[in-house]
Amino acid sequence: MKTSWKSCTSPALLLDTRIALRNLDRMAEKAQRAGARLNPHFKTHQSAACVPWFTERGCTGITVSSLKMAAYFADAGCTDITVLFPVNIRDINRINALVSKVKLTLNVISVEASRFLHKHLTHPVTVLVEVDAGYGRTGISVNDTGQIRALLECFQELQFPFYGFYIHAGHTYDAANRNEVAAIHQQGLSALKALLTAWEPVFPELKISMGDTPACSMLDNFDGIDEIRPGNFIFYDLTMAAIGACEFTDIAVCMACPVVAKHESRTEIVVHGGAIHLSKDWLMQKAPDGSNQMIFGRPVPIFDHHWGEPMQDCYVRKLSQEHGIIKLTQPEFDRIQVGDLIGVLPVHSCLTADCMGAYLTETGDTIEMMKWREMK
Amino acid sequence: MKTSWKSCTSPALLLDTRIALRNLDRMAEKAQRAGARLNPHFKTHQSAACVPWFTERGCTGITVSSLKMAAYFADAGCTDITVLFPVNIRDINRINALVSKVKLTLNVISVEASRFLHKHLTHPVTVLVEVDAGYGRTGISVNDTGQIRALLECFQELQFPFYGFYIHAGHTYDAANRNEVAAIHQQGLSALKALLTAWEPVFPELKISMGDTPACSMLDNFDGIDEIRPGNFIFYDLTMAAIGACEFTDIAVCMACPVVAKHESRTEIVVHGGAIHLSKDWLMQKAPDGSNQMIFGRPVPIFDHHWGEPMQDCYVRKLSQEHGIIKLTQPEFDRIQVGDLIGVLPVHSCLTADCMGAYLTETGDTIEMMKWREMK
Repeated sequence: MKTSWKSCTSPALLLDTRIALRNLDRMAEKAQRAGARLNPHFKTHQSAACVPWFTERGCTGITVSSLKMAAYFADAGCTDITVLFPVNIRDINRINALVSKVKLTLNVISVEASRFLHKHLTHPVTVLVEVDAGYGRTGISVNDTGQIRALLECFQELQFPFYGFYIHAGHTYDAANRNEVAAIHQQGLSALKALLTAWEPVFPELKISMGDTPACSMLDNFDGIDEIRPGNFIFYDLTMAAIGACEFTDIAVCMACPVVAKHESRTEIVVHGGAIHLSKDWLMQKAPDGSNQMIFGRPVPIFDHHWGEPMQDCYVRKLSQEHGIIKLTQPEFDRIQVGDLIGVLPVHSCLTADCMGAYLTETGDTIEMMKWREMK
Repeated sequence: MKTSWKSCTSPALLLDTRIALRNLDRMAEKAQRAGARLNPHFKTHQSAACVPWFTERGCTGITVSSLKMAAYFADAGCTDITVLFPVNIRDINRINALVSKVKLTLNVISVEASRFLHKHLTHPVTVLVEVDAGYGRTGISVNDTGQIRALLECFQELQFPFYGFYIHAGHTYDAANRNEVAAIHQQGLSALKALLTAWEPVFPELKISMGDTPACSMLDNFDGIDEIRPGNFIFYDLTMAAIGACEFTDIAVCMACPVVAKHESRTEIVVHGGAIHLSKDWLMQKAPDGSNQMIFGRPVPIFDHHWGEPMQDCYVRKLSQEHGIIKLTQPEFDRIQVGDLIGVLPVHSCLTADCMGAYLTETGDTIEMMKWREMK
């Protein structure tokens, strides 16, 4: 059944596939120009329906963030899958089910995990090593040469096919502008190049893998990088717009929210669209009065087959489980009525998509995500 | 298939039904002692499997936060349902489907919505009016006597059965202790009593409905209140423990998270358990060094059929989509190995449950939530 955007009666995550495909075309062309392989991260869209978008543009390998996601995309026909999450050895049965049918690359960052895998794997996997050049989430510190050496010697001993080094420079998400993103990217790349120089004599096929959405969107030169793995760029969001990694018009998802109440004294409206729809992720921004304001989304008008730009000086001030409280300017407040539908651009599209589990496209079609299967 | 807690291989939301039922017994007994009807909010557990827990303890009416949730629980056999969210008139078809089979009470706070309902309803509904005594989320301000009068006169004109006034004093969630909770509760109650005095001559059956989890947990005197509608109390969480509304041992849900990496230099571990599992809700707490720290959960040890108390001075410092970064003390860090399973008590159990869509009980059974149906 087709559902038009304007006819939504409860919160729905609208996906403008025209914008998403434009974002993808731009990234695929950039990767090709730069001579880097695009190995896209699928944690953002999490949908088998999006796979052809990528294969049609020449992507052969994909990146995921969990073994369940790897299994889902293996069932969707993907045959070269990298799990960019430190390998979860408790899930060895799922790993073995996967290695029997796809080329699987795992992120292995400890000798203990290597030995466990060696003992329990039924088929070979390729291994990749995540290093940390300052983000501080996970990966071996680039300065910890002893630990890197111990791990790579273990790979040699166990005869693991070693793919290369990977960095997720996630602190680009906190960058304020292009220069900061470029500096973070350059720092990571220098660290990887030093590792390459040190280890290429031992592993001549060694690859360098890096490139988050901010860096891949804002920079053009990927010299020395074999492959990039951005994910969020397919949809973008307010966080990426705040960094300058995209324009508002590049954001491909938008929550349709029914307006249920107006509060004149505070020029605020209440919408059905809360933390269980948008996620509780936030962004610090300057409010019109100059104060620092935690915002949870920005309202846009919804039309039949597109949405508009964010309403100036308006923002989602608060979310509870199902309520969204949107602060409006007086003119916008006067224009909007109870029973209207309003759009909210998300702060973090990956989490918003995961909350919703499905998209409603501009053609009125529903696209299912992995969660549809997970819940069963 | 039965799954024991210790055998989890990927993030799972553990539910200790013994704790949940103890929480429920305590609340049901307290309501009975106080002579207030317990009309529990089901937005927290969102599971048809939990319905018998409440009916067996004498609850006849239930409260939900959306029309979809009302439809789900109507299918589960609930016959007296209040939707405590400003009525979403765009969803009139779902409302009409509901009123044909259950006693439905809607939260109507505008003349416009009243007239719309009057025109489009196929069966009568009962209406309830949410008032705001300072929380500032939704409801008509208690001071706006003109708007309240206009609305109630509209109800008279349209011959709507008017149930009474309701307050959700959600600012108790930001209270620091029992005295602050009591003060907020008393302020709301006084406002409702004034409304009762003013309107009882016109609506002799008028009811007063209020009572969030902090107030219902920390106070004993509900004089003048006809019914209480707490929801979170069934599971509680770290937010409730911080206010003093529960002890850690009253928290009935816990996320099982595989440990995937250790980072010695920062005594931190990485677990599979991120924002898509726990939600991104947070709590500000004093870190061991005295600084204000945003925390996203607290680690506990997991045993075969129960979990332990929070590890002292340990907390979830950061969440990304699938990663949880847990700051540990040195002794705890030394004890935990890659491949272990660790528990995380959630900051906000309602959002965590909604993220996961299912529970794994101490008997190894899976309990499905509404989301299982929603996703299909």
